[in-house]
Amino acid sequence: MINGDEYIRRIKCYSRDMYVMGERVGFDHPNVEPVLKAISITYDLAKEKGYHTYSELVNREVNILNTCCRTPDDLIKRYDFQRELSMRLATCNYRCPGADAINAFMSVLEGDERDRFLGLLREIQENDYACTSALTDPKGDRSRRPSEQREMYVRVVEEREDGIIVEGAKIHQSGAFAADVNFFLPGQTFREGEEEFAVAFALKPEDRGVKYILQNTGMQAKQRDGGEFERGNPYGDRITCTVVLDRVFVPWERVFIYGDLKKVRELLTAFANSHRCVGAACKAGFVDSMTGAASLMIRANGLEKVQALRSKLGEMSAVSEGAYAIAVGAAVKGVEKNGVWLPDAIMANAGKVIGVEGFAKAMRHLADIAGGIPGTAPSEFDLRSEETGRYVEKYVRGAEDFSAEDRLRLIKFIEFWLTSSHYIGALHGGGSVSASVIFLQYMSDFSTKEDAVRKAINLKS
Amino acid sequence: MINGDEYIRRIKCYSRDMYVMGERVGFDHPNVEPVLKAISITYDLAKEKGYHTYSELVNREVNILNTCCRTPDDLIKRYDFQRELSMRLATCNYRCPGADAINAFMSVLEGDERDRFLGLLREIQENDYACTSALTDPKGDRSRRPSEQREMYVRVVEEREDGIIVEGAKIHQSGAFAADVNFFLPGQTFREGEEEFAVAFALKPEDRGVKYILQNTGMQAKQRDGGEFERGNPYGDRITCTVVLDRVFVPWERVFIYGDLKKVRELLTAFANSHRCVGAACKAGFVDSMTGAASLMIRANGLEKVQALRSKLGEMSAVSEGAYAIAVGAAVKGVEKNGVWLPDAIMANAGKVIGVEGFAKAMRHLADIAGGIPGTAPSEFDLRSEETGRYVEKYVRGAEDFSAEDRLRLIKFIEFWLTSSHYIGALHGGGSVSASVIFLQYMSDFSTKEDAVRKAINLKS
Amino acid sequence: MINGDEYIRRIKCYSRDMYVMGERVGFDHPNVEPVLKAISITYDLAKEKGYHTYSELVNREVNILNTCCRTPDDLIKRYDFQRELSMRLATCNYRCPGADAINAFMSVLEGDERDRFLGLLREIQENDYACTSALTDPKGDRSRRPSEQREMYVRVVEEREDGIIVEGAKIHQSGAFAADVNFFLPGQTFREGEEEFAVAFALKPEDRGVKYILQNTGMQAKQRDGGEFERGNPYGDRITCTVVLDRVFVPWERVFIYGDLKKVRELLTAFANSHRCVGAACKAGFVDSMTGAASLMIRANGLEKVQALRSKLGEMSAVSEGAYAIAVGAAVKGVEKNGVWLPDAIMANAGKVIGVEGFAKAMRHLADIAGGIPGTAPSEFDLRSEETGRYVEKYVRGAEDFSAEDRLRLIKFIEFWLTSSHYIGALHGGGSVSASVIFLQYMSDFSTKEDAVRKAINLKS
Amino acid sequence: MINGDEYIRRIKCYSRDMYVMGERVGFDHPNVEPVLKAISITYDLAKEKGYHTYSELVNREVNILNTCCRTPDDLIKRYDFQRELSMRLATCNYRCPGADAINAFMSVLEGDERDRFLGLLREIQENDYACTSALTDPKGDRSRRPSEQREMYVRVVEEREDGIIVEGAKIHQSGAFAADVNFFLPGQTFREGEEEFAVAFALKPEDRGVKYILQNTGMQAKQRDGGEFERGNPYGDRITCTVVLDRVFVPWERVFIYGDLKKVRELLTAFANSHRCVGAACKAGFVDSMTGAASLMIRANGLEKVQALRSKLGEMSAVSEGAYAIAVGAAVKGVEKNGVWLPDAIMANAGKVIGVEGFAKAMRHLADIAGGIPGTAPSEFDLRSEETGRYVEKYVRGAEDFSAEDRLRLIKFIEFWLTSSHYIGALHGGGSVSASVIFLQYMSDFSTKEDAVRKAINLKS
Repeated sequence: MINGDEYIRRIKCYSRDMYVMGERVGFDHPNVEPVLKAISITYDLAKEKGYHTYSELVNREVNILNTCCRTPDDLIKRYDFQRELSMRLATCNYRCPGADAINAFMSVLEGDERDRFLGLLREIQENDYACTSALTDPKGDRSRRPSEQREMYVRVVEEREDGIIVEGAKIHQSGAFAADVNFFLPGQTFREGEEEFAVAFALKPEDRGVKYILQNTGMQAKQRDGGEFERGNPYGDRITCTVVLDRVFVPWERVFIYGDLKKVRELLTAFANSHRCVGAACKAGFVDSMTGAASLMIRANGLEKVQALRSKLGEMSAVSEGAYAIAVGAAVKGVEKNGVWLPDAIMANAGKVIGVEGFAKAMRHLADIAGGIPGTAPSEFDLRSEETGRYVEKYVRGAEDFSAEDRLRLIKFIEFWLTSSHYIGALHGGGSVSASVIFLQYMSDFSTKEDAVRKAINLKS
Repeated sequence: MINGDEYIRRIKCYSRDMYVMGERVGFDHPNVEPVLKAISITYDLAKEKGYHTYSELVNREVNILNTCCRTPDDLIKRYDFQRELSMRLATCNYRCPGADAINAFMSVLEGDERDRFLGLLREIQENDYACTSALTDPKGDRSRRPSEQREMYVRVVEEREDGIIVEGAKIHQSGAFAADVNFFLPGQTFREGEEEFAVAFALKPEDRGVKYILQNTGMQAKQRDGGEFERGNPYGDRITCTVVLDRVFVPWERVFIYGDLKKVRELLTAFANSHRCVGAACKAGFVDSMTGAASLMIRANGLEKVQALRSKLGEMSAVSEGAYAIAVGAAVKGVEKNGVWLPDAIMANAGKVIGVEGFAKAMRHLADIAGGIPGTAPSEFDLRSEETGRYVEKYVRGAEDFSAEDRLRLIKFIEFWLTSSHYIGALHGGGSVSASVIFLQYMSDFSTKEDAVRKAINLKS
Repeated sequence: MINGDEYIRRIKCYSRDMYVMGERVGFDHPNVEPVLKAISITYDLAKEKGYHTYSELVNREVNILNTCCRTPDDLIKRYDFQRELSMRLATCNYRCPGADAINAFMSVLEGDERDRFLGLLREIQENDYACTSALTDPKGDRSRRPSEQREMYVRVVEEREDGIIVEGAKIHQSGAFAADVNFFLPGQTFREGEEEFAVAFALKPEDRGVKYILQNTGMQAKQRDGGEFERGNPYGDRITCTVVLDRVFVPWERVFIYGDLKKVRELLTAFANSHRCVGAACKAGFVDSMTGAASLMIRANGLEKVQALRSKLGEMSAVSEGAYAIAVGAAVKGVEKNGVWLPDAIMANAGKVIGVEGFAKAMRHLADIAGGIPGTAPSEFDLRSEETGRYVEKYVRGAEDFSAEDRLRLIKFIEFWLTSSHYIGALHGGGSVSASVIFLQYMSDFSTKEDAVRKAINLKS
Repeated sequence: MINGDEYIRRIKCYSRDMYVMGERVGFDHPNVEPVLKAISITYDLAKEKGYHTYSELVNREVNILNTCCRTPDDLIKRYDFQRELSMRLATCNYRCPGADAINAFMSVLEGDERDRFLGLLREIQENDYACTSALTDPKGDRSRRPSEQREMYVRVVEEREDGIIVEGAKIHQSGAFAADVNFFLPGQTFREGEEEFAVAFALKPEDRGVKYILQNTGMQAKQRDGGEFERGNPYGDRITCTVVLDRVFVPWERVFIYGDLKKVRELLTAFANSHRCVGAACKAGFVDSMTGAASLMIRANGLEKVQALRSKLGEMSAVSEGAYAIAVGAAVKGVEKNGVWLPDAIMANAGKVIGVEGFAKAMRHLADIAGGIPGTAPSEFDLRSEETGRYVEKYVRGAEDFSAEDRLRLIKFIEFWLTSSHYIGALHGGGSVSASVIFLQYMSDFSTKEDAVRKAINLKS
């Protein structure tokens, strides 16, 4: 297992077409670099805290994110890792969809496809690669089927003897440009006649024709402005990108599903449940970070004795522990499929629904506690300026321990939580809340519940 | 292990001062009988579904409610039992506070007190007794300390060589009159000088001076009116009572704590966490019952194709699975104390907070789906009447399978869910939501979260 | 204008087929009498507080509920009356749907139909009649059209020279049996070929074939048990009934719409908006009552100094004033139609949506403040009993001013709020919240809002 | 009355110490210019739509924002103006606190102070000045009184014959640098001995020692990056600043309160109620803008037929109409004070509470409807770039009418709504929600409500 610096050095060797604001950029660009920094922590923390497990495939310990979980304890270890990463980074660690894809593929692939996947997985484990995955196609006009607007979906445009040519785009692949391996999965199920879209594969750095167009939120604009803490969070704002596949050749050994509509359905279900469940642990960690910030802000303002504020901390604690406990419960009540231990599907989706509600509640409490200042504070540059510095020093100062600089650091961090793209990401990452509710509506066992009622009230019908 | 009928026969042999509407009643009274019926299911279901475990104390299998849990699996078994009971009964099973008391006592008692308790526990297990417990003192004027209004708290009024005389009342002891053993625990912690109130003990059927004054909700008035299904739920409406101790003698062997303020605090914490956590599983089962009813009502009205209603079923499923998953997670992440496996305290309280919110949401969805009819339907007696029966037959009929009678049974069951004392019980059972938030506010580890933030943003203070 | 007693005497002269629990009952029945008591207050309070206005039709002052509102001030007077009635009665005043029907008919009827209606209205005003109205047909299997299950809708089954014979039922007509005049309106719009259902008319006491089958909630069972305050609210629990029309003859002069599908649509829209808007004022009054009870309970428990509880009172105040203000705003921004001043339709529906959310929030706060006792208290009969009275006296007592009896009265009143059919009634009265949202979705002016955005961001499409 | 361009020309003549990112900037700076643009609309729209009223003071029509409202209709006109401005600008119009200050001063000042104020008001009206006001002092350690940390509050540091020297800062004065007149009001009430802080006055462009340090949100960083629509909203992101008073001399004729603790209390109450009430109309307009954006996004995605999304538009409509109706209701039920018509205080605060809840709900619905793309979209610069433009054209395109550019404009506007400082501003502008609840808790008439309950249930105590 490599460390964070080794990971960064490796990534920086790749040649990648990354674009910010319409221009090609390198790995040192201020919108790219935080992603590397965040991912590097996934390496260092795994070593430091033991978030790894033994892999028979390579006969040694591997990062828990680079293998499939085989037991409830493996899964809980993954959730513990996720929660801690979220709490420490206060943003995406970028690798969880990669881990979800590994677990999903391993639980559904069989025969040749499984062997191909194991070949890649061995390479991933041997090199301690960082993986991500992408699902969301642009979709354009949602009232039309894929076959009516082919270009809006990743698809096979040519079959060759040694592989396929794919074309299309994925619009939300967080951190893709900072990964060693990128998985591509279909974003939905397809009907007969739509086999060209039913394709799942992996890309590696040597593949040509891949373009990464980064998003541009306000927080990223702040990152480009520099400063030490003005951007709020040194690990950045869920940096994602549109990945364009401009006639990319993929050799057969990295094509795992092609044309098999049923396998696509199975893969998506496994991926979605895996991702939504780890998302509950992730939200727990995010709420932990917001809770820490809220608790510090209470001190910074000398408000420790105000019960109404402190009780909000208690409610935030209910949110984070509740979301985390759901993930743990789903792990314990999970199911084995092809040697992979998957979380209970219903609980996983419940975790998504309750986690998002809790996240929004925590944001509200943080905003209540922090007051208006995260929206109106001067900048770090005002603090450093000869003309304005003395005023900022004087007027931003907090209760005894908190210098103006420290309070401003905290304010900027809270501003990050309240005005970054986190709210959107929490709602839609791993699929919208509505998608989870629809899953629950179709997959829950209502007949047992109906039967209990029938029996209690002696119903004939 | 006995069965439900044996339990009922045994209880009916006791001579008890039970009062309904100011008059002494027997076990056949329509407000008492449903409690026996509900508790009898705790016997039958334990046998049928294996909700028991081996006890070294008596060298045989015992109901999981009559022993302390020693492993996470024991605790999960208890939560599974609880959830199933709640789903089947759609009301209290009355024995969970008894089980919480057993777990709490066993986790804190030491030395002589522990031996005394083991003596009673052996008897409980040998006879397969049903136990309940009570904590809530009347408290009167909450601005005054117990010592300023002694009669408002259960207390020792006389010490004798062979035991103590206790006096006072507990105002919410659900199902007390239908139990073999009733535990009494202090409802709060006390200060020095208030040792007379710091007393925990058990009562048995032979004790004199105990009065049970039942509450009188609308649902209980309906029970007294008879009919087969008009009362909505054959297992009754969380039937509780005020237990009055009118100079009751308790022998020393059933006094487990007396005057030890620290032990009271420990006992209360263990009890509260145990009860709040099982309460999350309980809410899951209640929501299951409401979901079953909602799903049936959708059919009864021919509304299966209305997405807006079906999606509410999905949300109800998120609530029940989420609450249950929290209980499971708390069990897995629990702690051992004196050989007892207790749920994680923070998660237990999170389960209370999230469970209650979910319960209220589920009620709302059930009410939305059911329409106004649970508040305005004719009665079973109108259906049976010569004068009105033909109209009820004609106008209450639902979609194809649902006869007027079946639809009316379902309507009355939903009326029960929406107008019984369940809402109050869910909010306040095991302590109010505010009590859980206060616990979370004092016991959560905020410093780790603060430290993560400090590190991320490089804070000096 | 008559007074409350005169109204009661008049009603008691009518011969009506009213049924409770399958048996024919008279006006002194404990489930009927509270309705008369509640309605009598609508007479007395109108006189006492000036809730009347001048009618040119009869050339004198008439109750604001028995005329159409002609100005914003008329409408605000009606809302003030409604709020005060709701606060004082803590239940339905039963006459608002009658007033809504009068306003709806007057705003849409023209020509002969209008003259017919004016004839009846003159009679209503001259006699100071109490009016109600009903809309909801049983509907049976909602997946079928009315023509596929004719008996599930009120319809004309025979035309005669002097009038029509109608048959069917209305399932939720609150207080119908205590009114002088009952209006019947269709519960939905109809398509061509369904003209038989498109009928709106009025019934009077002399009409034969009308049956009133009362609902039977828990609160009504308590009313039948007697006592002075055990039932919680002397004015009863939104007492409603199924009204069966068993081949009822209606003379043409009381048939206002028949077969005119367009008029039905207009009538329904006017009625719904009128009713939903007054419903916002009604919820305000209900929340006022809950707030008063909560404030008293805080005193009764000696908790005046607990900020967390007092702030809930502040939030309840926001709910009631907000709901009321919406009604006032809708009145001011209303529209004139045929001389009738109707509230703004969009605001009226907004009032329904926000009012119901606020009502549920207020219930939650009341439950939080009251604690568990409203679900577990002994009864008034226990207080009066020789055997249990001294215990109730001792243990139910509150802070200084509050005797056990007074605290128990208050507890029973709060129990009424939390376990009566009010929650169902608030959600579904005047149509469900979903019905209002659907109205808002179709009738709101989204294009102005879209245009503002288009202009701000310079959109071409 | 001047037009928008004339206003801009006048402002640009002032010499002001404005700082962005630690550097002095001019009125053309991209963070300053949007404020001028927004305020200019307050001039043009007032003319175009008649948002003005006759002023006896200057004997001509004046902008409704530059005079005190004398009737309910004046106040409703102000709310209509506010709502329309919010809908059109999708951000602050910056002048409402100025108007609130004018109304508050006019309702409380008497004698000499009133004359002084009238002198300034005449000048304001004659010149059609734009006014703002500020209240919030930095407050530092909230556990200490002002006298323990004097520099944290604006205060009089020297009295001169011709005026006073003031020092201190106000931390959230939105748009201050773009106003002709800035009012300074105390941010809280004071105790005896704290008279130095009890000072209210006005500043004009000629005053020396005033510094404006702008905040620096992500949205402002985007503004600095340029582009036509990348910043989302051309009118900017609630641009506010810390105003530093570095020994500023204020002549007596612009000092309206000094040392009068009672007047400070009255002024603050009048200001807060005025501002919270107009805030409800403001939230209505903001929600209108979000609703327009949501409705357009549904089209842009071809999702017009998805009921679940359209019903969210209905709910958003309930929010905006409800909030606006509360403002109208408060105007109608307002009170006259010294010739000023103030909104009903309780309703005004209810409007704040309900408006903020509704705003948060609308944000959630907008986020649900928009999907993840507002957080992950490429930038306008990517669209314009030779290297990436063709990909953006291809993959961002929406349903038929929506070109990639138009859809991207819309996406950026929604990104603005979801990640700007609007959420913080909505919560805390005009005081936090908690501040309103505290007001409601102290000022609501609970005794009338208690009395209604007492009477209904015949309470003795």
